[in-house]
Amino acid sequence: MGGDIGPQVTVPAALSALSAHPQLTLIVVGDATSIERVLPANLSPSLKERLIIRHASQQVSMDELPSSALRNKKDSSMRVSINLIKEGIAQACVSAGNTGALMATARFVLKTLPGIDRPAIITMFPTAIPDKVVYMLDLGANVDSAAHHLYQFAIMGSLLVSSLNGVTHPKVALLNIGQEEIKGNEQVKQTAVLLTNSKVVQYVGYIEADAIFLGSVDLIVCDGFVGNVALKSMEGAAKLIVKFTKEAFAKNWLSKCMGLMAYPVIRNLKKRIDPSRYNGASLLGLNGIVVKSHGGANVLAFTHAIHQALVEVEHDIPQRIREQVGLLLEDQKEN
Amino acid sequence: MGGDIGPQVTVPAALSALSAHPQLTLIVVGDATSIERVLPANLSPSLKERLIIRHASQQVSMDELPSSALRNKKDSSMRVSINLIKEGIAQACVSAGNTGALMATARFVLKTLPGIDRPAIITMFPTAIPDKVVYMLDLGANVDSAAHHLYQFAIMGSLLVSSLNGVTHPKVALLNIGQEEIKGNEQVKQTAVLLTNSKVVQYVGYIEADAIFLGSVDLIVCDGFVGNVALKSMEGAAKLIVKFTKEAFAKNWLSKCMGLMAYPVIRNLKKRIDPSRYNGASLLGLNGIVVKSHGGANVLAFTHAIHQALVEVEHDIPQRIREQVGLLLEDQKEN
Repeated sequence: MGGDIGPQVTVPAALSALSAHPQLTLIVVGDATSIERVLPANLSPSLKERLIIRHASQQVSMDELPSSALRNKKDSSMRVSINLIKEGIAQACVSAGNTGALMATARFVLKTLPGIDRPAIITMFPTAIPDKVVYMLDLGANVDSAAHHLYQFAIMGSLLVSSLNGVTHPKVALLNIGQEEIKGNEQVKQTAVLLTNSKVVQYVGYIEADAIFLGSVDLIVCDGFVGNVALKSMEGAAKLIVKFTKEAFAKNWLSKCMGLMAYPVIRNLKKRIDPSRYNGASLLGLNGIVVKSHGGANVLAFTHAIHQALVEVEHDIPQRIREQVGLLLEDQKEN
Repeated sequence: MGGDIGPQVTVPAALSALSAHPQLTLIVVGDATSIERVLPANLSPSLKERLIIRHASQQVSMDELPSSALRNKKDSSMRVSINLIKEGIAQACVSAGNTGALMATARFVLKTLPGIDRPAIITMFPTAIPDKVVYMLDLGANVDSAAHHLYQFAIMGSLLVSSLNGVTHPKVALLNIGQEEIKGNEQVKQTAVLLTNSKVVQYVGYIEADAIFLGSVDLIVCDGFVGNVALKSMEGAAKLIVKFTKEAFAKNWLSKCMGLMAYPVIRNLKKRIDPSRYNGASLLGLNGIVVKSHGGANVLAFTHAIHQALVEVEHDIPQRIREQVGLLLEDQKEN
């Protein structure tokens, strides 16, 4: 039910994912009538038998406070979906709904993995190098994180990147600012010490925000406040450029004509650059797999998010993090 | 001598500023031979008499550590320029040099204004509203700033915006992330309390980073670490879009042809969006006016930076901040 559009996006995306992945079964949670309305009448039996509708009487609105969702929406599509993971019925949850409510509900119902203090939000960005992506966390699950939280993020992120992208030893960088001498704030300096001494993370040093897209590293670690500001600054800049581009092409008849011709190119560019639509964001560090799709995701983008959840299930990311925590704790003792 | 190009940019920009402002006299500080080499032979007497060359035997390199510049470069063009302010010979300094060294030197030589604990770097950005700009500080002069530092930034920024842009009561917002309930980190929450109770700042609440460019506020206040990450994230996103655009237009002969036609439009767009080139950044809170131009600034951009310094001189920004500090202290007592 989540996202700006709801079942008209999520249900077609579910069907698309079912077609692409014959081993997949999806439980579509929400208002049964709304869901059935958008299902095609001529749905093939091979899809129909792998699509289970689970009615939920409530939904969390996009601007609802997480506390309100937790307290008042116990039969929301979001809450029921996450409960299904806890009950062992579903292996992952994908939602385009309210991020804060999803995070709070997932954390409340599933709890964090043993040894992990805080979950983090991670997503990937395109880079200047073709087919090379970079992951970044935390994008806003927590603020005022301590150095050892950022260190846990680095371990969890490394596992995700190596599982999803097949990079054996992902290069991990710490987001910092460029003043050489007083390099970074206390949080970053303390995290750098932990990462430098780590035996489980391949730490390559600091990275500045204008180098995020260069493709020189695999994973960038930062505090959730900073990561969220970085993400939204990129979005804001991208939107402004698109607006200015439209205005520039609308200036006179010649530019209008060129704009019409160039429109498909520009539209594709917008899609390629917009990080929030680039793919699903994973809530990492929980006893279960939860993928957050952008609220404004279209069918293709939401299908990507389902695909990402599937890959995380295949690699059993939570279990891998659980195993690694032993190494982490040994590692911390030695530091 | 500063910037990626040096006198070949700064000297023509100086001449351009002298032509535009008949009341202006510029002291061009640096290697006299290098400066004279780029001066045109047929320089008009009206310009020549207002251009003073002051030889300096050293220069601070772009990647030099601030501490090294302070210790070893006492006759650098940067140090001499800032000394000229302290000696009362110059009223402002404009540099395209090493930001960290400029900040450290300016702070060491000029000191902060009474009542101001920390200087801040401020610059303006374009917005989606034509002719409307938004200012933001701190962009990286300090990290780990306390709430009362951010409050001082808000006061200094408001004064600059009202002086430079004629906005009587600039709308001031605090940069935050979008999680409704646990809105922001401790630093932001504490600053919000100070700003809400302020009688000298027109505080309008939180703003998210994707709304920086909307043009809804006049000034955005943030910690230097966060501001620097925001600035560089925008730069990174803008550069990636430009790269992708070039690649998209280079795809086939039709797109290449369109790209050739559209090149001037795209180039202008790049200039319009690139925040670091948009104008000079001011070092605010010092006993003197220091404007930092982007290291990669061209003649036009560096001329803008000189123009900005001139406007700050005309409004005597440091004196206005000094006066306002009385109000600030009263204001703080009442809180």
